[in-house]
Amino acid sequence: MIVVMKTGSSRKDITKLIKRIEGFGLKAHVSEGTDHTVIGVLGRVFSEVRDALELFPGVEQVVPVSKPYKLASREFHPLDTIVEINGVTIGGNEIVIMAGPCAVESEEQLLTAAQAVKAAGATVLRGGAFKPRTSPYDFRGLGETGLKILAAVAKQTKMPVVTEVMSPDQVDLVAKYSDILQIGARNMQNFVLLDEVGKAKKPVLLKRGLSSTIQEWLLAAEYILNQGNDRVILCERGIRTFETYTRNTMDISSIPIIEKVSHLPIIADPSHATGKWYLVPPLALAAIAAGADGLLVEVHPNPDLALADGPQSLNFDTFRLLMSHVPPIAESINRKVADPSKKTKP
Amino acid sequence: MIVVMKTGSSRKDITKLIKRIEGFGLKAHVSEGTDHTVIGVLGRVFSEVRDALELFPGVEQVVPVSKPYKLASREFHPLDTIVEINGVTIGGNEIVIMAGPCAVESEEQLLTAAQAVKAAGATVLRGGAFKPRTSPYDFRGLGETGLKILAAVAKQTKMPVVTEVMSPDQVDLVAKYSDILQIGARNMQNFVLLDEVGKAKKPVLLKRGLSSTIQEWLLAAEYILNQGNDRVILCERGIRTFETYTRNTMDISSIPIIEKVSHLPIIADPSHATGKWYLVPPLALAAIAAGADGLLVEVHPNPDLALADGPQSLNFDTFRLLMSHVPPIAESINRKVADPSKKTKP
Amino acid sequence: MIVVMKTGSSRKDITKLIKRIEGFGLKAHVSEGTDHTVIGVLGRVFSEVRDALELFPGVEQVVPVSKPYKLASREFHPLDTIVEINGVTIGGNEIVIMAGPCAVESEEQLLTAAQAVKAAGATVLRGGAFKPRTSPYDFRGLGETGLKILAAVAKQTKMPVVTEVMSPDQVDLVAKYSDILQIGARNMQNFVLLDEVGKAKKPVLLKRGLSSTIQEWLLAAEYILNQGNDRVILCERGIRTFETYTRNTMDISSIPIIEKVSHLPIIADPSHATGKWYLVPPLALAAIAAGADGLLVEVHPNPDLALADGPQSLNFDTFRLLMSHVPPIAESINRKVADPSKKTKP
Amino acid sequence: MIVVMKTGSSRKDITKLIKRIEGFGLKAHVSEGTDHTVIGVLGRVFSEVRDALELFPGVEQVVPVSKPYKLASREFHPLDTIVEINGVTIGGNEIVIMAGPCAVESEEQLLTAAQAVKAAGATVLRGGAFKPRTSPYDFRGLGETGLKILAAVAKQTKMPVVTEVMSPDQVDLVAKYSDILQIGARNMQNFVLLDEVGKAKKPVLLKRGLSSTIQEWLLAAEYILNQGNDRVILCERGIRTFETYTRNTMDISSIPIIEKVSHLPIIADPSHATGKWYLVPPLALAAIAAGADGLLVEVHPNPDLALADGPQSLNFDTFRLLMSHVPPIAESINRKVADPSKKTKP
Repeated sequence: MIVVMKTGSSRKDITKLIKRIEGFGLKAHVSEGTDHTVIGVLGRVFSEVRDALELFPGVEQVVPVSKPYKLASREFHPLDTIVEINGVTIGGNEIVIMAGPCAVESEEQLLTAAQAVKAAGATVLRGGAFKPRTSPYDFRGLGETGLKILAAVAKQTKMPVVTEVMSPDQVDLVAKYSDILQIGARNMQNFVLLDEVGKAKKPVLLKRGLSSTIQEWLLAAEYILNQGNDRVILCERGIRTFETYTRNTMDISSIPIIEKVSHLPIIADPSHATGKWYLVPPLALAAIAAGADGLLVEVHPNPDLALADGPQSLNFDTFRLLMSHVPPIAESINRKVADPSKKTKP
Repeated sequence: MIVVMKTGSSRKDITKLIKRIEGFGLKAHVSEGTDHTVIGVLGRVFSEVRDALELFPGVEQVVPVSKPYKLASREFHPLDTIVEINGVTIGGNEIVIMAGPCAVESEEQLLTAAQAVKAAGATVLRGGAFKPRTSPYDFRGLGETGLKILAAVAKQTKMPVVTEVMSPDQVDLVAKYSDILQIGARNMQNFVLLDEVGKAKKPVLLKRGLSSTIQEWLLAAEYILNQGNDRVILCERGIRTFETYTRNTMDISSIPIIEKVSHLPIIADPSHATGKWYLVPPLALAAIAAGADGLLVEVHPNPDLALADGPQSLNFDTFRLLMSHVPPIAESINRKVADPSKKTKP
Repeated sequence: MIVVMKTGSSRKDITKLIKRIEGFGLKAHVSEGTDHTVIGVLGRVFSEVRDALELFPGVEQVVPVSKPYKLASREFHPLDTIVEINGVTIGGNEIVIMAGPCAVESEEQLLTAAQAVKAAGATVLRGGAFKPRTSPYDFRGLGETGLKILAAVAKQTKMPVVTEVMSPDQVDLVAKYSDILQIGARNMQNFVLLDEVGKAKKPVLLKRGLSSTIQEWLLAAEYILNQGNDRVILCERGIRTFETYTRNTMDISSIPIIEKVSHLPIIADPSHATGKWYLVPPLALAAIAAGADGLLVEVHPNPDLALADGPQSLNFDTFRLLMSHVPPIAESINRKVADPSKKTKP
Repeated sequence: MIVVMKTGSSRKDITKLIKRIEGFGLKAHVSEGTDHTVIGVLGRVFSEVRDALELFPGVEQVVPVSKPYKLASREFHPLDTIVEINGVTIGGNEIVIMAGPCAVESEEQLLTAAQAVKAAGATVLRGGAFKPRTSPYDFRGLGETGLKILAAVAKQTKMPVVTEVMSPDQVDLVAKYSDILQIGARNMQNFVLLDEVGKAKKPVLLKRGLSSTIQEWLLAAEYILNQGNDRVILCERGIRTFETYTRNTMDISSIPIIEKVSHLPIIADPSHATGKWYLVPPLALAAIAAGADGLLVEVHPNPDLALADGPQSLNFDTFRLLMSHVPPIAESINRKVADPSKKTKP
């Protein structure tokens, strides 16, 4: 951390500040500039220290130098993390397609969807049993019944499933029936929940919060990693901006940024990022071209009959059309798409 | 809800659409325009209906007309809600000042702070026992020990206390020791938690999420009201924008907007909105002038020794200076500040 | 336009409103709903009408139905606009690469850059002579000297050039020396300048404003089209959000949206969108995959010696590497990259 | 400026970097940290230098220390700037109210408005002759005819007038007929226009851009100051956020921030900030309470007949009601409102 003193700060202020820094068990290193004196602070700095120094008389600015996340950083862990789930690997050379309906509605609906997306090239099945909804009056999912359907369809189609967990006390239940625990965007900073999935034995798919910076997102991952769960998959799903045409704005740059600063895999969810089905295919292809390790796509047998998120769901035909474009894009950047016929639950 | 058809949509599309609307148990009312046919949809409309109609062939746009929240709306409940807590009333003519440290650190720290803020004019004590922190490495609060200190100081100073609850399974515990349950900004859409505090017998202070629209905020309140808890206090604490000088941008207009569209009381938290102590007094006065029913202000005996949020905490002198300006501003708009010597716990 | 009346609005209010609508030469069409009366307004509606009706007693909400832009809309002009400049076509099947340094610094610098980017596959040369700079103390470009260098290098390399015009009285000068007039993001709503380039005989490259919605962007294009210049090329260059890692956030979804709602070509500028050279290649490929008609990329012989925007400029090697990936991505979506050896100034 | 090297950067990188810094005529001062070597750069740093250093091998981060604006900073000019216009002073203890219609429509309309706002307490008249409009089809103002009406009404009512100038070649014309040149939000970074009003002999009212940081706003002021015009008045008018209830979000914190970091006066425009007339009075009072030096308010004899911005204009009654609350709020913070009967054109 670096402390920049105000122009004209007194010798006395500087001496007091150094004493304060040393009081935290840290070292101070002073450099005199033409306009400003600058003090380097050496040692592990917690946010309380930063807060305290900002308030000191004569201090102009406190500049953090070290990144606040460690376990999630590539500096700490230079090699890519590859998450393996029942033969499917996420974060390696292969691109993984996760697809399925927004909400589990019935076994028939889910099975039809699972068979169709697998036939088209998906290797992981998605489907929501607990649904976070902006309004209390909207359909909130089938709950445990939905989880049981997910598990049954997963077994039948030999696909691992990803599904959302919304509350710390649901973690065991959801982990029992599914293969990947999803943390939704609205829960990205639900710290009690992050701690809890950090203790689970299942991989976690962590969606980016609607107004989260990349650094905050990685700090949320840090919560999970810090509890000992090192199988975290990040998912870009759009951030909130002033643009009203789309539900959110997909921050395509987060994909190469995460690849640079972190070792964790990153996938993209163009369905939630846009809220409109006809924008899903171009954004899905863009995400692959930008280096995403996979896609999370909503597909429904009958989007216009869906109980949730119909307008952003692809039907089987549009999903198949999208999937026909994915392999050549992947090959253009020397990657390939995971083959569902080879990646199956034992 | 209104459905606007595309220019040139066919008679067949319109007929099919009407059938679909009626299939939801709703009525359709068609008006032919020069460019567009417009169909009014009569009856209670759920979001699934909207989603389904958006996908219909020939549909250009679906426009919601009714507000999606009901219990929180002024139309439904024209008179102001006044929340009463141990003799303190929030949402009436009196302006209520809630003040205290960000985090409870010790009984001595909290008691000193409580006595000082009460002497300066505060009627409710704030203090955090469970602290949501962006980084897992920062101080997360004293937990139940903190709650016990809060309860002890509350008793001694005869002030009701407000403190944050972060998780559904903490609700009973926090309710046992405190008078107002605070839902933090990052949990505004933690729907399981909202349901749970909706079942509690204590008033709830609901902070606005960092990237929440006013409508989403009122829908979060609707979750609580819908569980039978009608004592909800809203709290504006800044939204996330591109400006980096302040931690957040206080949306001062939310105060008169809430007053117009809802019956719930609204207070302002200038400490979190700005992140800088010297901006707290002007923003606090601005909030009162704009019609806020109260303030939530961080005050610490020694901000530079605080374990959390030091840079945004007032010390006792600056808090007293702020409080000297509050009554004349309140009187300018025909309100007055609650008198702590009269508002005490029995 | 649709006017939604408040619940409980009076018959008298509605009668007065209809009279007012008819006073504007428009027709009113009333539908009674269960909660709300809705009035359709038929005829061409200006924003003054909308403004006036919003103020009427009993009015809850005024909803525009027709899009406010016309000449820029695909409804008005269903076929793609293809802009042709000296043999280069923009907006057809071929993808066009525009590249070159941020600022023209010298004939040697520009010529070296032009030859290198052409050899690597660029067909249009970019370079700034008038530079908008946030600070008055930064390098503002060589002005007319820069334009002359641009024209000389354009002639020698047989590449059309695109360069920025910042002020209405510069339009003739810039048009004299260049082939495409660029309107920068900060001038997207400089309406006097838009009118002026609308009268010029050169194509216009219109960058999206930092905080402009897609609708405002198309209305800015409408200014140019409305003056008779139908050769407008849109350019997505990132919008301003809360994320601080990148200079701006590239709104990748604007590419397929523009393609859907407008007939104008759209290209992407990943250099300004990110502000970091190492993010340019993945975002460039993403833009192509999402359907962009071309790229605008900053390339400099020595980015670390550049007088402007060095950190976001590619050097020749990284540009060549990027260009090696563009044709296969283009082919994956059935497009191809324009061949500079065939597209030359006569 | 401070350069932070990457963990593990080589001695060779550091030596090369120091050489590069010295090549710019600057001095380097090295401090070795535990994780990072930090290099202080001494001397006047232009943005090109920063750009170049960011690209150097081994560099992690470049941190600017000095503020990029100088003439606009309070460090450079500790005393408040007070702008005097025909007896009206802006930036001193008195609060100045500027009011009038959005657009000049006729002499009768303007005169009626001027007399009414003056009688209610306004000392400066506002009115637009050149109107920036998002759509080319909206009313764009009366142009020079409007300016003549403004000058005539100014003379008759003895009020100075403020009006917008949209283009460099209009500056002389607008300056001839008016007392304060207004730069609109969309032109805040129209650098050619800023230079031009910097050369004019009239004070300039500089509105904040819709997506401008406070630092960019002060750099825009720096353009004007740098041309020799030291009479700049800043005007907060709302920034663009995700909230859709209001047209913009008024950043109330910009008022005390500007007061802290700059010597320039700052006023608030609650009309454009909100876009809704009923939000104007509470936000006007909030701005005064936060320390604004004045208000810019739209007032129209008949808002529902206005040719522009009717929904955000107050009528005479609501303006008078607002004005009845302003003096007590001002007095609460030891200021007073300028008396129009004493402040008149000679």
